[in-house]
Amino acid sequence: MDQAVIPLGKPQPERADAARNRRHLLATAREMVAELGVDKVTMDRLAERACLGKGTVFRRFGTRAGIFRALLDDDETAFQQSVLSGLPPLGPGAEPVERLIAYGRARICFLYEHHALARAALDGNEPIPVGARNATQLHIRMLLGCAAHGAGEARLRGADLDTLAVQLTAALEAPMLLFLTAPRQRETPELIKRMADGWQDLVERVCG
Amino acid sequence: MDQAVIPLGKPQPERADAARNRRHLLATAREMVAELGVDKVTMDRLAERACLGKGTVFRRFGTRAGIFRALLDDDETAFQQSVLSGLPPLGPGAEPVERLIAYGRARICFLYEHHALARAALDGNEPIPVGARNATQLHIRMLLGCAAHGAGEARLRGADLDTLAVQLTAALEAPMLLFLTAPRQRETPELIKRMADGWQDLVERVCG
Repeated sequence: MDQAVIPLGKPQPERADAARNRRHLLATAREMVAELGVDKVTMDRLAERACLGKGTVFRRFGTRAGIFRALLDDDETAFQQSVLSGLPPLGPGAEPVERLIAYGRARICFLYEHHALARAALDGNEPIPVGARNATQLHIRMLLGCAAHGAGEARLRGADLDTLAVQLTAALEAPMLLFLTAPRQRETPELIKRMADGWQDLVERVCG
Repeated sequence: MDQAVIPLGKPQPERADAARNRRHLLATAREMVAELGVDKVTMDRLAERACLGKGTVFRRFGTRAGIFRALLDDDETAFQQSVLSGLPPLGPGAEPVERLIAYGRARICFLYEHHALARAALDGNEPIPVGARNATQLHIRMLLGCAAHGAGEARLRGADLDTLAVQLTAALEAPMLLFLTAPRQRETPELIKRMADGWQDLVERVCG
């Protein structure tokens, strides 16, 4: 139907062209966010800068928020990739508790670096995406399972690991959420460090 | 201004009358919720059952959601009262860690018993009230402070208690929030017990 509403004025692109357009649009949007900030990126400006028709941008992203959602999805995928198969201690190869600490520290930085994008990716009509949260909780649950069955971590044996994973996910995200919704502070790097240290302290208390 | 919009048809009530009306309306609304369920309570039915004018009900509560917000406020006040000056271990007189465990267990029950009311108290135009959450976080922070300075709990000394209070508040509320927004389960009492046990386990790991 959207094909009918906004004619492209050129033949229906090949699948390979569509993929190339997508990568080109995302790269252009990323440049614009870095240069101009999130607020200055609009559908029209993106189309102009990418030298593509507005219809292409519209069909690709749906709404302005959709641009930022696509960028965020892209970065989330890269983040999860580095968790699943990157270098230790974030990736496989380190002890589970060490990985749990590294995950929270990396996640806090990720959320901080992406907060403008994440806010712009929400529009009033869309539900808040829960995919990333589920990935965090699943990863924490997996590492807790490894820790509980590992040789060194007798402390976790017998614990309700599903409940603990929910608790730790919330404990990881809540300070960040409070920070991101508060008026911007001057001492940001200190606060981010404090949150990361707080996460490490909590994990060591719970699992150590 | 609301006085002008909906005339009472009787003289402006005394301050004591207003207070009596308020108590009478809340008691009537509470009866209706218990008998009929939240969904059946409307401004019109409440006015009829309370034998008061619709204008009185309207001025008191503003919207239908306002009825449930007033009931919830009333119960929150009673809950906080039992925390501040009730019997131990919820009230003063027990060890801080014991009080922390008792607080979470009592809070889980409170949230469970009030979930229909809390949902009905939200309407689309009002921000989600954060007062109760702040009370929980303040209380947890206070008990952590007592525990850190107490004789028995050397484990908490040197911890970042502000961050820990945010983490524990989130860990207390998140499982409950997930439960309350999920489709109703059959094994509710087991789940509530599991959450309460999970809270106790977390507190013992962190502070014990």
